[in-house]
Amino acid sequence: MAQTVAFFGLGNMGGPMAANLVKAGYAVRAFDPVPASVATAVAAGCSAAESEAAAVAGADVVISMLPNGELVEALFLDQAGLFEQLAPGTLVIDCSTIAAASSRRVAAAGAERGIPVVDAPVSGGVAGAQAATLSFICGGEADAVARARPLLAHMGANIFHAGASGAGQIAKICNNMLLAVHMVGTAEALQLGVDNGLDPKTLSEIMLKSSGCNWSLEKYNPWPGIMDNVPASRGYQGGFMVRLMQKDLGLAMATALASHSSTPMGALAQSLYQLYGELGGEDNTGLDFSSIQRIFGGED
Amino acid sequence: MAQTVAFFGLGNMGGPMAANLVKAGYAVRAFDPVPASVATAVAAGCSAAESEAAAVAGADVVISMLPNGELVEALFLDQAGLFEQLAPGTLVIDCSTIAAASSRRVAAAGAERGIPVVDAPVSGGVAGAQAATLSFICGGEADAVARARPLLAHMGANIFHAGASGAGQIAKICNNMLLAVHMVGTAEALQLGVDNGLDPKTLSEIMLKSSGCNWSLEKYNPWPGIMDNVPASRGYQGGFMVRLMQKDLGLAMATALASHSSTPMGALAQSLYQLYGELGGEDNTGLDFSSIQRIFGGED
Amino acid sequence: MAQTVAFFGLGNMGGPMAANLVKAGYAVRAFDPVPASVATAVAAGCSAAESEAAAVAGADVVISMLPNGELVEALFLDQAGLFEQLAPGTLVIDCSTIAAASSRRVAAAGAERGIPVVDAPVSGGVAGAQAATLSFICGGEADAVARARPLLAHMGANIFHAGASGAGQIAKICNNMLLAVHMVGTAEALQLGVDNGLDPKTLSEIMLKSSGCNWSLEKYNPWPGIMDNVPASRGYQGGFMVRLMQKDLGLAMATALASHSSTPMGALAQSLYQLYGELGGEDNTGLDFSSIQRIFGGED
Amino acid sequence: MAQTVAFFGLGNMGGPMAANLVKAGYAVRAFDPVPASVATAVAAGCSAAESEAAAVAGADVVISMLPNGELVEALFLDQAGLFEQLAPGTLVIDCSTIAAASSRRVAAAGAERGIPVVDAPVSGGVAGAQAATLSFICGGEADAVARARPLLAHMGANIFHAGASGAGQIAKICNNMLLAVHMVGTAEALQLGVDNGLDPKTLSEIMLKSSGCNWSLEKYNPWPGIMDNVPASRGYQGGFMVRLMQKDLGLAMATALASHSSTPMGALAQSLYQLYGELGGEDNTGLDFSSIQRIFGGED
Repeated sequence: MAQTVAFFGLGNMGGPMAANLVKAGYAVRAFDPVPASVATAVAAGCSAAESEAAAVAGADVVISMLPNGELVEALFLDQAGLFEQLAPGTLVIDCSTIAAASSRRVAAAGAERGIPVVDAPVSGGVAGAQAATLSFICGGEADAVARARPLLAHMGANIFHAGASGAGQIAKICNNMLLAVHMVGTAEALQLGVDNGLDPKTLSEIMLKSSGCNWSLEKYNPWPGIMDNVPASRGYQGGFMVRLMQKDLGLAMATALASHSSTPMGALAQSLYQLYGELGGEDNTGLDFSSIQRIFGGED
Repeated sequence: MAQTVAFFGLGNMGGPMAANLVKAGYAVRAFDPVPASVATAVAAGCSAAESEAAAVAGADVVISMLPNGELVEALFLDQAGLFEQLAPGTLVIDCSTIAAASSRRVAAAGAERGIPVVDAPVSGGVAGAQAATLSFICGGEADAVARARPLLAHMGANIFHAGASGAGQIAKICNNMLLAVHMVGTAEALQLGVDNGLDPKTLSEIMLKSSGCNWSLEKYNPWPGIMDNVPASRGYQGGFMVRLMQKDLGLAMATALASHSSTPMGALAQSLYQLYGELGGEDNTGLDFSSIQRIFGGED
Repeated sequence: MAQTVAFFGLGNMGGPMAANLVKAGYAVRAFDPVPASVATAVAAGCSAAESEAAAVAGADVVISMLPNGELVEALFLDQAGLFEQLAPGTLVIDCSTIAAASSRRVAAAGAERGIPVVDAPVSGGVAGAQAATLSFICGGEADAVARARPLLAHMGANIFHAGASGAGQIAKICNNMLLAVHMVGTAEALQLGVDNGLDPKTLSEIMLKSSGCNWSLEKYNPWPGIMDNVPASRGYQGGFMVRLMQKDLGLAMATALASHSSTPMGALAQSLYQLYGELGGEDNTGLDFSSIQRIFGGED
Repeated sequence: MAQTVAFFGLGNMGGPMAANLVKAGYAVRAFDPVPASVATAVAAGCSAAESEAAAVAGADVVISMLPNGELVEALFLDQAGLFEQLAPGTLVIDCSTIAAASSRRVAAAGAERGIPVVDAPVSGGVAGAQAATLSFICGGEADAVARARPLLAHMGANIFHAGASGAGQIAKICNNMLLAVHMVGTAEALQLGVDNGLDPKTLSEIMLKSSGCNWSLEKYNPWPGIMDNVPASRGYQGGFMVRLMQKDLGLAMATALASHSSTPMGALAQSLYQLYGELGGEDNTGLDFSSIQRIFGGED
C-alpha cells in the first residue's frame, strides 16, 4: 500500500516536489496557507488537508518546505505543535533552508517523542524541483537518512549525508558561501580582463581549462552572451535570485558569528550582495545572483 | 635541419623546458648568469653560450624565462639590447610572468625591427615544466603565436591565444587572481564547516558535487589529509609557493589600479596572502599557497 | 531618605559602579552568583541580597550589569522573572551590552507592567567604572531616561539619550564598529609608513593634525612607545580586550544582518579581529584591542 | 630685494598658491601650458614666462604643482630638463602629489647637481590654497625643508617634516588612506544606525564624544543635513572629489604593493571608491568623496 505523506509548504519549490511524489505513487496531503498553492497541488494529484492536524493524521512521513526557521519551529513545536500529534516513528523531513540551530531544536524535540527528524535543505532551484534533479544535503541519524532516501530520490538526483542533525544546513551554507565567493571572484576577473582588452569569451575559455576553473565559470557564466541558457544571457531573469543568496549568506554569517569562525571572503561577498541588492535606489534583489557582474561596470 | 633556439633563464622552470626542447631535436643555446644552471642545461644537452650575443647569433627563435620585467626589458631593450642583434623575422617568445605593460613595451620595440614577440606566461609549475604539461597563455599577433605553437607544444600540453601583445599576461593574472579567491574561499568554507561539527572530507565531497565546486577543491584541497598527492597532505611543501602567489596578486592589483577596475575580492585575497606571508614572525612565503588554510585556525 | 537600588552583576564593571552609588548615599543591595564579587561589594558598603527577590523587595531602582542578553532576559523575564515582583513605577536600568532586540523585549515586557526600562550600555572600561567617568548611551522613554540621569551621573561623566528602547545598544555598537574600523585603519597606516621608512611617532603627529585624525590615533596609539599610558606601551595589557571587541563586532554584524545593512568595512574589521584572536595557535583575545597592530608585522 | 620664484602649474591649486606668494612680496614667474591659467596668474601679479628656461633663469626658488609624476619628471629630468639650467643651490619645492619613488628620483638627480629638492604635497584643497591654510607635508634634507618653510608659510598654516626625500609623499598617502577608511567606516556606521531607527544627528553627536570620533565625523559629516558648510549638505558639490581620492588610494596601494605591506582596510576602501566612481553607469567621480555615503542606501 502506498505511503502517506503530509506535505507542508507547496510554493514554487514545494509544489513541484510534492507533484513528483504523487507521480511516484505516494498519497500526498497538502497543507499551505495560500489557497492558490493548495489548488495547484490538488491539480497535481495531492489531496487538500483542512488543517495541520488533518494533514498528519495517520501519515507515515511529514515533509516541510518553508521559508524560514520561525515557521518551521511554529509548525512542529509551537503554534501547530505537530510533534504532539505524530505517532512515534513517523519520519519528518524538513527541506527548508534555515539556521542549523533551529534544525537542531526541532530534531531534539522530535527525538524526545521518538520521531526522527532529517534536515534536508536543497539546491537546484525551481527547475531542479520540477525536473526532480534537486540535491538534498541531509543532517540526522544514519537510519533516518536511510529511510528518507527513497522519497528524496523521487524528488532529486543527489542525496548527501553531511552528518548529525543540522549538518545538512551547515553544509549547504558552506557551499553557498563558497559559491558566492567564486561568483563574485569570477565577475571581477572577467571585468579585469575586459578592462584590459581581453575578449570575455576567450578569457572564460582559458580559465575554464586552468586553475581558475569553478562552477560559476563552467555552469553559470555571469558575463552576458558567453553561455546559452544561463541567466546572464537573458537579462539575469530566472535562476537563483539575489535575495535568496542574501538569505543564505545571512545564515552563513550568523553561523560564523556563533562559531567564532573568521570568513573574510564570505563576509565581503555578503556585503557586496547587500550593497548590490538595492543599488542606486533600484531593487536588484529579484535578479539572478550572477547579475553581481553588473556592479563591476560592464563593457563601457 | 634543426632549428636553433637561444634560451635565456635556465632555472627551476627554464631548465626542464629547455631540456624538453633538446629532446624534441632543437639545438638549444643556454644563457644564464648562474653557472650551476648552465651546467645543468649542458648536462641535458644544451650548449653553453658565453654571452647574450653569442647565444642569439644565427638563432631562429629566442625564448626567455626570467623572474621579472626589469630583467626582460634589460635583456631585449636596455643593457644587453638583444633586439639590435637579432635578424628581422627571428621569433621571440617570452615565457616570464611580468606586467602586461612591460610585455607590450618589449613587443612594440620588437615590432619596430620586424621581430615578432609573443608573451607566453605559463602555469603548471616545476612539475609541469618537467613533464611537458605546462599551459602557455599567449599574447601577440596570430601568425607569431602560430609560429610559436610547435615549440610550445614540446614543452606543454595547452596553448591558449588570449589576444594581442600583453594579453597572455592579463589572462594569466586574471586566472591566478580568481584562483587565489577560490582557494581562500574554499579554506574559509572548510573551516566554517569544521567549526560547526562537519567532517572536512564529507563536506569536500558534497561541495565537489554542488555549486561550490572549484579547482582548489577538486585538484588541490587545502585541508590536510583529504587528498593524496597535494601539498596540504605533505606539510604544504612543494607546489606553488605563497611568494609566487603574492607576486601574481601584486601584478593583478597593479593591473587593476592602472585600468581603474574594482577587484574587492582579489584585493582582499592579496591582503590576506600578504598578511599570512610573514605571520607571527614566521616566514610562510616558502610554503604552498594552499597553506592559507592555516590562517583560519585548523582543527582546534 | 536615600533611594534603594538593587544591583545585579558586581563584576569588574558592576562592582565599582555600585561602589560609586554607595559613596553617593544610595542604599545598594548587591546580588551576584559569584560570592567573591558579593564580598567585594559588601566591603564597599553594599548589603548582600540572598536572592533576586530579596534584592528587589521595596527597591526604587534596579540596575543590571550582565555579560549577555540571555542572562538579562533570564533575570527579568524567564527564570528569576523579576518583573512579576517589581512594583509598577520601579525604574529598571540595564547597563549590559546586549542585542537591541533583547533590550526591546525586556522593555516591552516591563512596559506591560508599568515598569519603565532604560537600556544604558557603557563605554569607558574598568578604569572609567572606578573613576566614575563612564559614558552611558541610553535608550528608552524620555522621562525614564530623565529619572535615570541622576543615578548615572554618580557613575559616569557623559549620559547620552540615543532614542527609544534599544537605541542605546544600537548607538553603542555603531560607535564600537567605527572604533574597530579606525583602529585597524590606523594600524595599517602606521605600518605602511614604517615599511616605507617613516618614523611612526612623526607620522602619528602629522596625521593627528591632518584629516586622518581619529580617536585611536589621538587617545590610544596602537604602535608601542608612541604614547605613554596606553596599552600599546605596556605590552597591550589592560585596556579593552580583543574578546570584548569581538563581542561588540558580533553584535554589530548580527544587527546589520537583521536590518539588511551593508557594512563592508565593519565586516572586514570583524573578520580580522576574529582571525587575530587565535592567531597561530596563540590566544590573543586577552590582549588589548589595539594589539591588532601586531598582525601587520611590526618593526621588522 | 625680493626673492624670485619660478612657479610651474597654475591650476586650481597652484594659481591661488602663487597669488599668495605675490601678496607676500615675492616676484613670481608663472609657467603653465594652459593660457587661461597663465592669464589668471598674471592678473594676480605674477609675470608670465615664455618657456620653462625663461621661468627659471636667475630664480632663487622653483615651485611645481603638477597633476602627476610623469609631468614632474619630464619637467626636471627629461624633456624640459630643468636641472641642467638651475644654478647649484637653487631650492626646488615640488608640491605635487606623486609616487614617493618619483620624488626620490627627482631629489637624487637634484642632489647630484647640488640642487636641494623638497617634496611637499599639500592637503586642504582649493579653499585652503586660497585662504593660505594648506598643510604641507615635507620630505627632504632638514636644511632644505628649513629654507622652504618661510615660503610655505605664506601659502599654508601647517608645515610638517616627515623625513627624507619621498617621506612627504608617504606620509600624505598614509594619511589619506586612513581618511578614506574612516570616511567609509563613518558612512557605514551612520547607515547602520539609521537602518535601526536612530536619528543620524543624534548618533553623530554621541560618536563625536565617544571612541568612534574621527575627522570625517567631526569636520566633514557625510550624512546630508547634519553639518552646515560641508559637501554633504550641498549635494556633495565642491570639496575633495572622488577622483582625487581614487588617485591617492591608487598611490597608497602601489606603495603597499612595493613595500609588501598588508593594508586590507585600505584596499577595501580603494575597491569601494573604485566601484562607487562609475556606479550604475553614472560617473560619481566629480562629487565630493563623502558622497560614498550614498552607496549604503540612504534614508529609504
